Amino acid sequence: MAYSTIRYEIDDGIVRLTLNRPERMNAFTVEMCDELVDAYARASQDDGIGAIVVTGEGKAFCAGMDLSVDGNVFGLDETLSPTIEDMRDKLDDPAIHAGVRDTGGRVTLAMYDCLKPIVGAVNGVAVGIGSTMLLPMDFRLASHTARFGFVFGKLGITLEACSSWFLPRIVGLEQALEWGYRADIFDAREALEKKLVRSLHAPDTLMEDACAFARSLVKDRSPQSIALIRQMLWRNSAEPRPIEAHRIESLAVFYTSIADGKEGVRAFREKRPPRFSAKASEMPAFYPWDRPPERG
Amino acid sequence: MAYSTIRYEIDDGIVRLTLNRPERMNAFTVEMCDELVDAYARASQDDGIGAIVVTGEGKAFCAGMDLSVDGNVFGLDETLSPTIEDMRDKLDDPAIHAGVRDTGGRVTLAMYDCLKPIVGAVNGVAVGIGSTMLLPMDFRLASHTARFGFVFGKLGITLEACSSWFLPRIVGLEQALEWGYRADIFDAREALEKKLVRSLHAPDTLMEDACAFARSLVKDRSPQSIALIRQMLWRNSAEPRPIEAHRIESLAVFYTSIADGKEGVRAFREKRPPRFSAKASEMPAFYPWDRPPERG
Amino acid sequence: MAYSTIRYEIDDGIVRLTLNRPERMNAFTVEMCDELVDAYARASQDDGIGAIVVTGEGKAFCAGMDLSVDGNVFGLDETLSPTIEDMRDKLDDPAIHAGVRDTGGRVTLAMYDCLKPIVGAVNGVAVGIGSTMLLPMDFRLASHTARFGFVFGKLGITLEACSSWFLPRIVGLEQALEWGYRADIFDAREALEKKLVRSLHAPDTLMEDACAFARSLVKDRSPQSIALIRQMLWRNSAEPRPIEAHRIESLAVFYTSIADGKEGVRAFREKRPPRFSAKASEMPAFYPWDRPPERG
Repeated sequence: MAYSTIRYEIDDGIVRLTLNRPERMNAFTVEMCDELVDAYARASQDDGIGAIVVTGEGKAFCAGMDLSVDGNVFGLDETLSPTIEDMRDKLDDPAIHAGVRDTGGRVTLAMYDCLKPIVGAVNGVAVGIGSTMLLPMDFRLASHTARFGFVFGKLGITLEACSSWFLPRIVGLEQALEWGYRADIFDAREALEKKLVRSLHAPDTLMEDACAFARSLVKDRSPQSIALIRQMLWRNSAEPRPIEAHRIESLAVFYTSIADGKEGVRAFREKRPPRFSAKASEMPAFYPWDRPPERG
Repeated sequence: MAYSTIRYEIDDGIVRLTLNRPERMNAFTVEMCDELVDAYARASQDDGIGAIVVTGEGKAFCAGMDLSVDGNVFGLDETLSPTIEDMRDKLDDPAIHAGVRDTGGRVTLAMYDCLKPIVGAVNGVAVGIGSTMLLPMDFRLASHTARFGFVFGKLGITLEACSSWFLPRIVGLEQALEWGYRADIFDAREALEKKLVRSLHAPDTLMEDACAFARSLVKDRSPQSIALIRQMLWRNSAEPRPIEAHRIESLAVFYTSIADGKEGVRAFREKRPPRFSAKASEMPAFYPWDRPPERG
Repeated sequence: MAYSTIRYEIDDGIVRLTLNRPERMNAFTVEMCDELVDAYARASQDDGIGAIVVTGEGKAFCAGMDLSVDGNVFGLDETLSPTIEDMRDKLDDPAIHAGVRDTGGRVTLAMYDCLKPIVGAVNGVAVGIGSTMLLPMDFRLASHTARFGFVFGKLGITLEACSSWFLPRIVGLEQALEWGYRADIFDAREALEKKLVRSLHAPDTLMEDACAFARSLVKDRSPQSIALIRQMLWRNSAEPRPIEAHRIESLAVFYTSIADGKEGVRAFREKRPPRFSAKASEMPAFYPWDRPPERG
């Protein structure tokens, strides 16, 4: 897929994913949704890259949904009357997929399924979907000039992009309620204090810092180990009982212990860096372990 | 329903809900349970109000269950032998409802189902059910003189009012375990440090501050948008997978985008405050989305 | 069961559980797994003890899996090809139990099921399973000299011991991801700042402080009340809806209110310490309330 709203550039094992509509403050469109879904799936399967860094071209990160388009600005088919049963049983029906499903959610579910760590480099305004698409990232680094806002309430609509699932996991339920109700723009300092972002950076070193941090996470690591750790933490932690984690972890330790784990133990004994060979594009057969209808 | 243990007063779009047994330090009774359940349901459906502020009459907020009554002080029917199957299948059976179900839980489930933001103005001692009935509130503001305590362990009983579900979500599991085991009274400073309360206030400005904060959350907002944001954050965040949030958010954005969302986008483009008209008493058909037996 | 890798010593109502392979820095083995599972079950049923304090003999707490053994260092049967269905349906099959199930998870599930509060006294290096076996403890106290590390990624394997379930509940998802990826050793100060441990102590007062803290939690408490509070917080808080907590809490209040609750209320009215008599070894019939396949 050729991209027209984003850039996908590989640099020393890292994908730099850049929202690229600077003339529109990188405002989100249905096209950008499709391209981001594709880009995260592509990075998942590309064994040449270890991690993903996401930023925006120009001064903004993403100014939210592009409200200047004609018709339903969210890309929805207003002739439909979708029900909760439709959403449970027909999520992949073409009419539901194109005319009802929240585009932000399609992007964040692709990020949730991603096998590589994702680091945000929030270079400026990140509002609406610009804020909610940050939440499934592993880490959010931000410029001192960044601003954030879950502004949906001001438009009379609601949280989206699975942010009602992700945001309370990151900042707690009370803070999520407050930002949801307030629906205003807040600055990088508040985002740091409330732990929405991990650290603040000077605008001109942000991207460099984010790439260095991303590299530090995956250097000398087994891509299969990294992928499993990411998937296990997001999925297992949300299960109602630890026995569900035990089922998956047992298989994960079993299959990694007879693959990269052998080299890892050898390297540890020989006090040398390991040379791992298992690939994220060739995961053990038990992955993905979610049964329908749990899968995104 | 006429209330004898609480007061329900509307002031400029806010309900002031006051526990009103000051001669008993607003101690909780079965009657107060029934009246609170009614009051939260009433406020949910009253389109004239935007938010709820809860406080206690006199010096105390609520000194806990009234232990001075005769018979089973918790209002339970000791002739029954309820089983876990009864609780799964017969929760609404009159004998179970009246003689087994925890009265505190009946109140907090009504608060959980409430369509309006709830702000606590904790004006003094809040012990036992006085503490646990604070947990499903969106925000807890407290006087410097407030005191708290999950004292059930001192009485040889256990956590109630769904606090085993709510408390860890607010303060974390380790702190919940500590307060549950300690079962002692602690002061407002500890409550603030451990994030049980949002902020401390002078006793004589507490109620004014709480009402102003509550108003700030709902001013110029769509009541349907507010109701959906509240319900989605509590419910979706507890699902095992983000896809469940996606199903609900898609419908929420769909139906709000063709109602108050149109006015919201117009007002945004025209740089003026929106004039929303959708009502919380007329929610879109997909609400409530929980299927039995998930509903409270 | 006689123990050869741990010590189980009762001191004034507290079990001191000591990892006891100091010549190997208390490295974890399959034998230690079996002994720890037995010890936690024993302490659960021993009405003579109120709480458990866990520490390591010598300078280390636990240096992780003993990587010096022959064959599969994790004790796994490499001739098997386990599937996700096996883990769902055959977890207790002898071949799966012995050759596939993660030994760390068997220990932490026994800790999760334990009816007594567990306090860690982390006296030194706690790496790999040495770190993950701390997570189901109620509280972790540590020496200034303690060090921690979720080092699995360095070995090319993954998180285990249900840490993908427990760790995000304690320190949040972002921190869990970071430690999982970094896979390095970090010091007691970082563990304290990130809330992995509750408090730091001088090496020579750590055990005394931990025992005093453990005793303070259970003094004058009903063992049934303590056991139910522990089980309800861990289990109910992870349910998708508070109504599930309500079912269990209703039964817990019902059955404790007609047992130790009567003495508790009497003692409260008479302003004297209660004399509780209900035993953790004789729990009310509704415990355990988890249905298969939810149970660990």
